[in-house]
This record gives sequence, C-alpha cells and structure tokens, in this order.
Amino acid sequence: MKNDNTPARGTRDLLPTEVAKRDHVLSTISNVYRQYGYQRIETPALEDLKRLQGGEGGENEKLIFSILKRGLPDVIDAGTQLSQLAHLGLRFDLTVPLTRFYGNNAPQLPSPLRSFQFGPVWRAERPQKGRYRQFYQCDIDIVGEPSVLAEIELIEATAKTLAAVGLTGTTVRLSDRRFLSALAAQVGVTDDAAGSFFITLDKLDKIGWESVRHELVDRNGFELSVADETQRIITELQAIGEGVDRIADLIPKLEDAVIADLTLTLEQATSGSETEILFDPTLVRGMGYYTGQIFEISYPDVSFSLAGGGRYDKLVGESLGRDVPACGFSIGFERIIDLLPQPEPPATVAILFETDTPTERVIAAARRIRDSGRNASVIRRSGKLGIQLDNARAHGASSFIHLRADSEQDISEERQFRDSD
Amino acid sequence: MKNDNTPARGTRDLLPTEVAKRDHVLSTISNVYRQYGYQRIETPALEDLKRLQGGEGGENEKLIFSILKRGLPDVIDAGTQLSQLAHLGLRFDLTVPLTRFYGNNAPQLPSPLRSFQFGPVWRAERPQKGRYRQFYQCDIDIVGEPSVLAEIELIEATAKTLAAVGLTGTTVRLSDRRFLSALAAQVGVTDDAAGSFFITLDKLDKIGWESVRHELVDRNGFELSVADETQRIITELQAIGEGVDRIADLIPKLEDAVIADLTLTLEQATSGSETEILFDPTLVRGMGYYTGQIFEISYPDVSFSLAGGGRYDKLVGESLGRDVPACGFSIGFERIIDLLPQPEPPATVAILFETDTPTERVIAAARRIRDSGRNASVIRRSGKLGIQLDNARAHGASSFIHLRADSEQDISEERQFRDSD
Repeated sequence: MKNDNTPARGTRDLLPTEVAKRDHVLSTISNVYRQYGYQRIETPALEDLKRLQGGEGGENEKLIFSILKRGLPDVIDAGTQLSQLAHLGLRFDLTVPLTRFYGNNAPQLPSPLRSFQFGPVWRAERPQKGRYRQFYQCDIDIVGEPSVLAEIELIEATAKTLAAVGLTGTTVRLSDRRFLSALAAQVGVTDDAAGSFFITLDKLDKIGWESVRHELVDRNGFELSVADETQRIITELQAIGEGVDRIADLIPKLEDAVIADLTLTLEQATSGSETEILFDPTLVRGMGYYTGQIFEISYPDVSFSLAGGGRYDKLVGESLGRDVPACGFSIGFERIIDLLPQPEPPATVAILFETDTPTERVIAAARRIRDSGRNASVIRRSGKLGIQLDNARAHGASSFIHLRADSEQDISEERQFRDSD
Repeated sequence: MKNDNTPARGTRDLLPTEVAKRDHVLSTISNVYRQYGYQRIETPALEDLKRLQGGEGGENEKLIFSILKRGLPDVIDAGTQLSQLAHLGLRFDLTVPLTRFYGNNAPQLPSPLRSFQFGPVWRAERPQKGRYRQFYQCDIDIVGEPSVLAEIELIEATAKTLAAVGLTGTTVRLSDRRFLSALAAQVGVTDDAAGSFFITLDKLDKIGWESVRHELVDRNGFELSVADETQRIITELQAIGEGVDRIADLIPKLEDAVIADLTLTLEQATSGSETEILFDPTLVRGMGYYTGQIFEISYPDVSFSLAGGGRYDKLVGESLGRDVPACGFSIGFERIIDLLPQPEPPATVAILFETDTPTERVIAAARRIRDSGRNASVIRRSGKLGIQLDNARAHGASSFIHLRADSEQDISEERQFRDSD
C-alpha cells in the first residue's frame, strides 16, 4: 500500500536540480564574503525557549515550534500548564542564536567577529505559496566594530555578493533609527506612540500619502499636525537626492554625528561599484532592536527587498552583560533563489549498459570516465532507449555511452547529446 | 547581567576554525561523490511522528525529539494522553526521510536515484563526551539498481572519498544478511531467536569466543551445539582469506547467487585502489532493514568504523507500495572530523588601523587587497599591537598591514607573519 509521502505540512523536499542551484548560489555568496574576512559559524537548531521568547524576536516569537519535554508520563497530570511541557524550541532566526554564541564563545573568537551564518530556521506560519515553515537564512554580522566602517563593509560586501550571483542593478536604501526617533520627536509623536507611527510611515511606498494620513489621524488618533509635518519633512527629504545635509535644517534636534555617518556611508559603501545608494527617510524595518543605521537592497521589478539589516548595539549586551557594538545584514536566500536561473550542470557521462554486459566492463568504463576528470553515472538499460536518454539528459548528463555484451567499438563510443535534441 | 549562554544541553556551537575544517572535508567528499553521479538532495528536519516511529529506526525511535502541537490550551485538559500532544518529530537519521522523499518524488527523479545527503539529525541521547544531541550524517544511496553494481560503486566511491580526505589504509569488511540467515539456520537457530544470536555474534571482535559462547548458551539459552557449530564454521571462514568459495561447503543451504555476488564485490570494489577488502562472517550491523550485502570500513588504531551500509530492498517499498531495490553507505562524519588535521586557511591580510586613520583610507586599503584576489579582514587598533597581531594570526591571517593617519609609506606596507613567530 502506498503511504502518504508528502513532507510535513508547510515543509518541502529539495530535488537534485534545486539543491544544485542553491549550492551554486551559496558557494558564490561564501566566496565573496570570505574576501571580506567573514568566517562561517554554526549554532544548534534548538535553543532554550526562554531565550527565544526574550522579546527581541517580535512577531516571530508567536511562531515558535517547541519541543516536548522527555520523560513525561503517558497521561498528563490534571492542571498541567502548557508552558510546563516544553523548555526548548526551534530557532526562528539566526540573530538571537548569534548573540548567545558570542556570549558563550567571546574569548575564543576574533575581534571583531565577522560571522557568516547559513542555516535553516523554523516558523509555524500558515502555509502559503512560496512561504515555508522551514527555510534558510543567510546572515553576515560584525560584532565589535563601533563605527560605520561596519555598515560600509556590510553594504559593499552584500551588494557585491548579489552582483556576483547575477543580481545587478540593485539599489541600497539607507536610513538611521536615530533619524527616525528625531523625526518622531520633531513632528510631535510621543515615545509611546512611536511604534504605530513608524509602522504607518513604513507603508508610504505601497499605499501613498492619502492612506498614510488617514491611518495616522483617523485610525491611530494622531493630531492632524503630525500628519502635515511628517508629509512636509519627508517630501522635502525625498527631494534632496544624494546629499543628506538638509536633514540638519529640517530636524534640528538630530545629532550632527548621525548625519556625518549617513554622509560617509552614502559616499563610501558603493563607490567604485555600479550599485546605487540613496537615503530613504521612509525606511523603518521591523525589528525593535536596531539602534543606528538600517538598510535594505531593492531590485528592479520586485516588490520585496533582496537583503536587509542594520546596527544593533544593545542586543549582544543583553546576553553578555556588557554592551558590544554589532551590525548585520541578511540576504533573503529563498527569495533570490527564485529570481535566479538554473546553473549549467557539470560534464557528466551517462553510461547505459544492457543487462547482459559483464559487470567488470561496466565498472571499467565508469572508471575510465572518472579518471579523465568527468563525472560518470551508471544506468541499467530498461524500456525504450530514447526515453532513458531523454531522462539522463534532463537530469544533467551531457553525453552518453551505450554498453552491450556484444558491442563493437563504435557502439561503446561516447556521444554528445545534440543541442537540437 | 551576564546570562547563561551555553547552548541547549547536549548541543554545541561550532567556531570558525571548526566550521572551516568541516566545510573543507565536506567539499572533498562532495567532489568525489559527484564523480560517481551522486546529487545532493534535502529533506526537512521535521517528519510525521508516525513515520519516525514506524519500526525501522530500531533503538533510535526511543530518542525522538517531538514537537508540541500548536494551538493547545494554556492548561492541558485532564486525561490528555502524551501521544495527543505531538504529531511531528525531528528526524533521527537520513534513511527514513529518504524513503519518504523517494515515495513523494519518484516521477521527477533520475532512475536510478543516486542521492547524497548531508545534514543534521537529532537524538535525545544522554550527553557524554563526543556524543551530541544534534550531529551531522553523510549518506549516499542508490535507489533502483538491483545488482551488486550498486554495492561495488558505493564501496569504491566511499573508500576513495576517505582516501581523498586523508584517511588511507582503510579496510572494507563485507558480509551479507542472506549469509547470516543461512548460517543461523545451519547451526540450528530458529527465526525467532536469530536476533539475539546475531547481536552476540557481532561482539566476537571485542569479547572473544569464550564470552560469545557463554552469552549464547548461559545467557540466551541456545544449545551447546549451536555454540560449537558457530565457532567451527566462523573459524573456518575466517581462515579462508580472500576467497569465499568455501562458504558453499560449510553452509550448503546458501544460494549460489549470494556467494557469486560476494565474490564479485570482493574482486571489484577496491581493485585498482590501495584499500583492502575482506569477507567478515561476524559483521552484523544493527539495523533490521538490511536484506543483502552489508559493509563497514575500518581504519587502523580506531575501534569504530568510519562508514557503514548495506542493501535494503524492502524499505522503500513500504512507503511506495511497490518494492524498489536500494543500497546505501553512510560516512561517520563527526568521527572522521575528529581524526583529521586542521586545513591551511586561505591567504588573508589583517588590516590593522589606528583610530585616527581616515575611513576612506582604510576602505581603500582593503579594496586593494581584495582586488588582488586575497581576503582582507579590517581590525581597529586597540590595546597592545603584539597581542592583536597574535590574535589575527591565530584566527587565520597570513600577513598584516598597519595603517595610521600619519603613516609613511613603509608603515603601511604589507608584512608576512614570520614562521618563527
């Protein structure tokens, strides 16, 4: 009887061609990041639930898969709290584990630490097209560099990485959480209300000023003057182009150092490359832990960002007991995979053998191919030859050999698959 | 306040040097397996508990981490069964997921499927030195080839892989489950008692004949004649060296085809290589699902096997509803990592900059190095220069540049770390 062999709800199998593409892209990413001194690290999939629920994961904390404790009785005692049943969970991102990793291993790590992480994370999201409950994240982080040298390097390396995998013509959008705080103060938004103010501002790209104003005033109860001032300042800032000097006039309370840092990043991060960079006063980014510059990379004709990140100077400190400056950038690996073409497979010879061919001959033919530096895939003949050849080709073979017990020299010769096939 | 930053009990963080070694070894393994036509596939970490507990996992089924269902009430209802709380678990091996993968995707897969899997598995073992609750497995499998061509290829590829990573002088030990069944019948062991008979026989290497006889007769209640006959036949078989023709005389009921297959594998699997192969009548292997040849690879001076595998012609059929021949080999990745030396790091220049160096100069120096094809790691000067240089070197730097605001040309020149340092 055939079982149901579909993977667990919301997860998926990755077939050979899909994995080949992912490995190819990952290899390119790793090579570029390595040039910048990033070294891969790895943390376990499981973390203490208390850490995962520590408040830095935002909405993701509601999506944790938790692990049933071992050694529980077969029938649960009456009155048992759900929270008593689990103390471990599957990580939902790579940032929370990184802060624990740094806290656990700091004395043995280089300073600054340049970490490259690539690994699966799990979120119990409602399954939908293109969104999975297990997916890969790809993060680089610098822990220990306080200046915008970190931001500049992260942006340069990530833009270069995206170009190396074939995603050129990207645009880096840059802002700063300190700018956003000063903007909120300037237009009269209190600290308590800043969260909903930013969430609305973040939507400007998609919904336009009319809807933003409506949401600010009618739905969130801000004064009309907040909407007016926000629209005036943002509109002026969007008009300034590459420079950010005008920020000082529009938001006098913002520290000069923040503007100087933005200027330096705008000047340096993509100089010498074809990537564009611009100040985007409406960029907010979701996570609460950012403390300085924030950035995203856009790609023509797609509505999502290819990568996003920023500075988070307090997060590592929460684990370590002393503040450590940190800054990270995360590539949306699953998203960029969908945008990229299948790479060329390596030269592989399909060795088809009729069942009457002596085993020794099949093995010898395969060894001869491998010794010549190519890949050989041995396939038993069955059914129609044409169908088997088509299949071999579809699965990556670039040429074939057909072996039979009585074969003459010409039949066992290698033949290329014709381009017109 | 410093938190406890240790990873979850029984798991571990992997530091940059450890990951560099693992990635280096994995890359070598992948390259060799690719020559043989193996293509990497991936399955999700989570599987249905019913599948994981299907009876093919042996003792591992007791070590499953299961996932708490979502949407349970905060207080568990009285009388709730433990089994009602979870329906997913973390995989404990890569073989059970492979059978589901094949059942789910067969029409889109090459035939035969040559799969290469590398990924973490989880087992709730009692933590102890060198044994972790999350560890990596590295499996190759051929699904769809019924003859010993599969066994020969798996053994050849795996022995070559081990040699390629530096583990030469290995010995392949070969047996066959059908031989073991015939042996059991020959010495008068019933099918019901075969399990405990084999478990005892498997220990011969370690405990010797006296203890094996004691365990068979006094502990497991076999007739004395069983012990006598077993010792006589095994001793004779161990003396025959490379040929296996004598099996036919000693165990007349064994099918000729089984002996012919063993002969072919012994002749072909390591011909042309420096790896030894021998028939080992005491090799049993733990899993219940093997149906034909079984094999392990030993390495001088270590008591564990580097790799193990065998044919399992019924397992895929349980998922698919029709029998499909299959054969696999698994490298003990964590074990071989411990046996191997650290690889040479890539050429990396540490760029140390005094804090008064203009950012643009630091960035320009780093770009110059990267444009020359080497890696550059930028490090802010802090504390004693000598200590920072030692650290940079310990973390992989092969040379350094020291930048200062007032530096003259000679100070910013690149210097190699001296070998005598």
